[in-house]
Amino acid sequence: MFRSHTCGELRSSDNSKEVTLAGWVQTVRKFGSITFVDLRDRYGITQLLFSESLNDQLEANPLGREFVLQAIGTVNVRSNKNPNLATGDIELLVTKFTILNKSAVPPFTIQDDTDGGDDLRMKYRYLDLRRPAVKKNLELRYAVGRSTRNYLHENGFIDIETPFLIKSTPEGARDFIVPSRMNEGQFYALPQSPQTFKQLLMVSGYDRYYQIVKCFRDEDLRADRQPEFTQIDCEMCFVEQEDILNTFEGLVKRIFKEVKNIDYSQTVERITWENAMWTYGNDKPDIRFEMKLTNLKFPAHAFATRQDLSNLVGAVNFKVFDEAETVIAFAAPGCSEYSRKQTDELTEWVKRPQIGMKGLVFIKCNADGSFKSSVDKFYSEEKLKAIAQAAQAKAGDLILIVAGPEERTRKAASELRMYMGTLLGLRKADEFKLLWVLDFPLFEYAEEENRWVARHHPFTSPKPADIKTMIENSPVIEHAAEYLKHPYANIKANAYDMVLNGNEIGGGSIRIYQKELQQKMFAALGMDEAEQQHKFGFLLGAFEYGAPPHGGIAFGFDRLCSLLGGSESIRDFIAFPKNNSGRDVMIDAPGKLDAKQLDELHIQLSS
Amino acid sequence: MFRSHTCGELRSSDNSKEVTLAGWVQTVRKFGSITFVDLRDRYGITQLLFSESLNDQLEANPLGREFVLQAIGTVNVRSNKNPNLATGDIELLVTKFTILNKSAVPPFTIQDDTDGGDDLRMKYRYLDLRRPAVKKNLELRYAVGRSTRNYLHENGFIDIETPFLIKSTPEGARDFIVPSRMNEGQFYALPQSPQTFKQLLMVSGYDRYYQIVKCFRDEDLRADRQPEFTQIDCEMCFVEQEDILNTFEGLVKRIFKEVKNIDYSQTVERITWENAMWTYGNDKPDIRFEMKLTNLKFPAHAFATRQDLSNLVGAVNFKVFDEAETVIAFAAPGCSEYSRKQTDELTEWVKRPQIGMKGLVFIKCNADGSFKSSVDKFYSEEKLKAIAQAAQAKAGDLILIVAGPEERTRKAASELRMYMGTLLGLRKADEFKLLWVLDFPLFEYAEEENRWVARHHPFTSPKPADIKTMIENSPVIEHAAEYLKHPYANIKANAYDMVLNGNEIGGGSIRIYQKELQQKMFAALGMDEAEQQHKFGFLLGAFEYGAPPHGGIAFGFDRLCSLLGGSESIRDFIAFPKNNSGRDVMIDAPGKLDAKQLDELHIQLSS
Repeated sequence: MFRSHTCGELRSSDNSKEVTLAGWVQTVRKFGSITFVDLRDRYGITQLLFSESLNDQLEANPLGREFVLQAIGTVNVRSNKNPNLATGDIELLVTKFTILNKSAVPPFTIQDDTDGGDDLRMKYRYLDLRRPAVKKNLELRYAVGRSTRNYLHENGFIDIETPFLIKSTPEGARDFIVPSRMNEGQFYALPQSPQTFKQLLMVSGYDRYYQIVKCFRDEDLRADRQPEFTQIDCEMCFVEQEDILNTFEGLVKRIFKEVKNIDYSQTVERITWENAMWTYGNDKPDIRFEMKLTNLKFPAHAFATRQDLSNLVGAVNFKVFDEAETVIAFAAPGCSEYSRKQTDELTEWVKRPQIGMKGLVFIKCNADGSFKSSVDKFYSEEKLKAIAQAAQAKAGDLILIVAGPEERTRKAASELRMYMGTLLGLRKADEFKLLWVLDFPLFEYAEEENRWVARHHPFTSPKPADIKTMIENSPVIEHAAEYLKHPYANIKANAYDMVLNGNEIGGGSIRIYQKELQQKMFAALGMDEAEQQHKFGFLLGAFEYGAPPHGGIAFGFDRLCSLLGGSESIRDFIAFPKNNSGRDVMIDAPGKLDAKQLDELHIQLSS
Repeated sequence: MFRSHTCGELRSSDNSKEVTLAGWVQTVRKFGSITFVDLRDRYGITQLLFSESLNDQLEANPLGREFVLQAIGTVNVRSNKNPNLATGDIELLVTKFTILNKSAVPPFTIQDDTDGGDDLRMKYRYLDLRRPAVKKNLELRYAVGRSTRNYLHENGFIDIETPFLIKSTPEGARDFIVPSRMNEGQFYALPQSPQTFKQLLMVSGYDRYYQIVKCFRDEDLRADRQPEFTQIDCEMCFVEQEDILNTFEGLVKRIFKEVKNIDYSQTVERITWENAMWTYGNDKPDIRFEMKLTNLKFPAHAFATRQDLSNLVGAVNFKVFDEAETVIAFAAPGCSEYSRKQTDELTEWVKRPQIGMKGLVFIKCNADGSFKSSVDKFYSEEKLKAIAQAAQAKAGDLILIVAGPEERTRKAASELRMYMGTLLGLRKADEFKLLWVLDFPLFEYAEEENRWVARHHPFTSPKPADIKTMIENSPVIEHAAEYLKHPYANIKANAYDMVLNGNEIGGGSIRIYQKELQQKMFAALGMDEAEQQHKFGFLLGAFEYGAPPHGGIAFGFDRLCSLLGGSESIRDFIAFPKNNSGRDVMIDAPGKLDAKQLDELHIQLSS
């Protein structure tokens, strides 16, 4: 050992001890004939004091930032203690030192508040990883992983490794593929998730499986996506939805407690997919704040059972609302006094191409009970009052109304609600609110191919009540224009998403375990029998030999860690992330291969 | 939940309870009007009793092997208890049952002693995994993993994930590669190990890193190799060899205790590589038994400091020994009475092509102190006695002697020693003996290229005493024939292997952390500066910014588990293994790809 103690451990009680420390030089400060060095390692920082007697040696061997230093000396209780440092009560009076390795001047400062830009920090990631903020993130990640493993262990789960070199069965996302040298012209794929393998483990009777496992998706990358990412992947036998929800609420609560010291004792709220869309305009609502949406007008096919309020906005010849498919309002609390400048800014915000609205209608609910709107020309005070009542606006609120085509308008309302939540400080960084979203539609309609696609994945079971509908009806859509009338359009999935502060952190479902139903599902997705056999013959085979009812869930580990760490970016919680072109700029990967390597794999570059 | 209890949990104390069980039908036995069913799940087997009143229902819904069954009933203490079953004190008097899923007749019996052949079991791996023996293996694997994580956690290690999509830098083994869609003509490689990344984490100051991680090597497969395998991968800062040995002896002892309930309290023995080769003929000796080798004759260049015993076998005109480069003997205890048939069988054994000896010489050390050998024609009683003394043979032993070229003969002696150990019952399945092998040569000589290759890997440091030799001498080998006289030939590596019962279970080294030394190492391996920069520029870069002394180790997790489980085959301890052609015969991977997928990846099949 190059040290007897770490740089984070010495205290007053160690006074006069002879110790050896090793670490990195954080700072060198000279005061007259004395030199102070802050020595840093993973565990902390200890101040070293080099007295005059070492000056010759220091001159011959000058210290610099990030030098690796071994220092032998005596622990000394300081008169001027540093309360900001765990070791601030002491310093080390150095008697002997050795420079274990030198350092060039780093390209950026090794501090939380660094002067290094993104590109530079990624190129020198090994230096970036020295910054306390990054270290804290990776330590949090480790703590989340450990908490997860302990909880799942205590609940009877066992970690079973599934293979990485599997078969390409692209559904939705693209696979990364791996040419086989031993099997000419054939390829492995890297798993997008261990989905089918964990189901096979249930068929094999392993009862409760988990894995914290790398998964791979060859998708065009956004800031918060990585080509390789990590999942907490779980599956259980002989369970229904309620069992899964209880088990994994428990997991997240345990993580909150152990990692953030938060007692999440309240009940985790639940909402149906339809209610989420109706009330928040999206399927992963942030429920840290209210500002619920009011659907003043909506197309006949959607939300058929909801109350039609279109009379509130129609019949006054206001073309914007009359021509809009959808009109959605919500009340921003306490904003009735917004200036023209402020409302103009909001209008500009919704007119940005990312949101795509043509404008924004305001109704100010004045403190005196009167109303003032940007559409006073069309709406009487009485009408405005009725709208305000429908939107549950109180005196002092500002009602915001968007109008346009169904999907875009709903998304705009949702985004504007989030934006207002941020503006009003309602999305508090230290508040965590969990939500289960339930009862998703099983299918989405794919217009180009005039067929169904699985909203979650092809292994998700319909709700028990909908199984009959699925079995007894053909999935074929005879009239594309009337796909909404097809019995499959209303089938609900036995699926659930866990949402944290407006982010989906986990999702799963009760699975299909009956061969006939699975075949029907594959058929609905446009697979003929030959394709079913080719891609999933092993799973259909397994379902012939006593497949039990089962279900599971997968959490996005990177996202979960970043949210717990209070960051929007998952990259900050990955030791060696890739950039938006899928490159690791530190090791400079991917790279070119020798012709010999390609030859051995029986492939060549496209000409 | 489809059950209130598992099939392994009910006891006499649960008498009269109403419970619900769910599981698989192991057996159905009809006794008159009563039907007994053994219901199985991961936790055990419970006997169900269907009384006469359920016969109509059973006839309408007949049960078969591997059917998935839910049974509701009352716990009843049995009069005829079954002591072989944890639940053998009770049975369930079934009042209601539901067949949750049917099963076709399985292609082999779901028992430890199955009638299924290897190929069939691999194709239906999901059924094979139901067999208790396989389940026990995967549970043992989980226990080893959990024990490892707990020990390393308690010792300050943190689990940090390293990337799977990296750069191809083949040294020795072939990489699996992954075409990049977003970077045309470029490829990722899957890691053969996280070696450079864990070293960077040390440069970043993470101090103690571990990971239980999948690694990939595209090698031709033997029975005990898999293209994807799992490592316990560890690295530590500011350590010397002694620290690593102590830390990881501790890990293995902890695993022994927690997984096998074995107190491994004895000191872990240590042997130098040279002593291992000298005494056991190989670098991973099984030290559960003695039978040490005696080198009666060996080439001048090898083991230069050892006593020359060639006078014992020479000067009698026995051409076999005279012409042999190497003559090695060992005494098989208590075998002096071996029959002609037995010694003939041993001779045949060493003459097999895998061993490749031309014959075997025997000396029987009779109980009365006399000797009888197969070479009495050449050797006097006195000479035989001298050889027996050198080989430390006692009266009653049988001395076996092999002779031939150095490498092949040493290997033959080693294999014959192991074979005799097995034959004599000295390699006990329930005995575990650990051994550290130390002081390996740093380099091996590659004849074709007339250059050095790293015996361990290019990041292993020479012993401190040899660093100067390495820095100050050119790696170039001027005269191929005299490579043994090159100063590099005698450089020892700061490396260590952990051996368990004759199997290497782990290996590691103290790493190079000085840029100059690392460059010298790369140069010795035939890399010019451009190639060094291209392949390992990031590592050489990292060594410029304060790289600390560090070292580590990696354990073969699959192998470790198989040895603890008492099996020679790692496949038995992998949930979904591949066969010797690298195929997963269950999912039928690898497979062909659509032309579209290849196009997107900018590759095509070789024409």
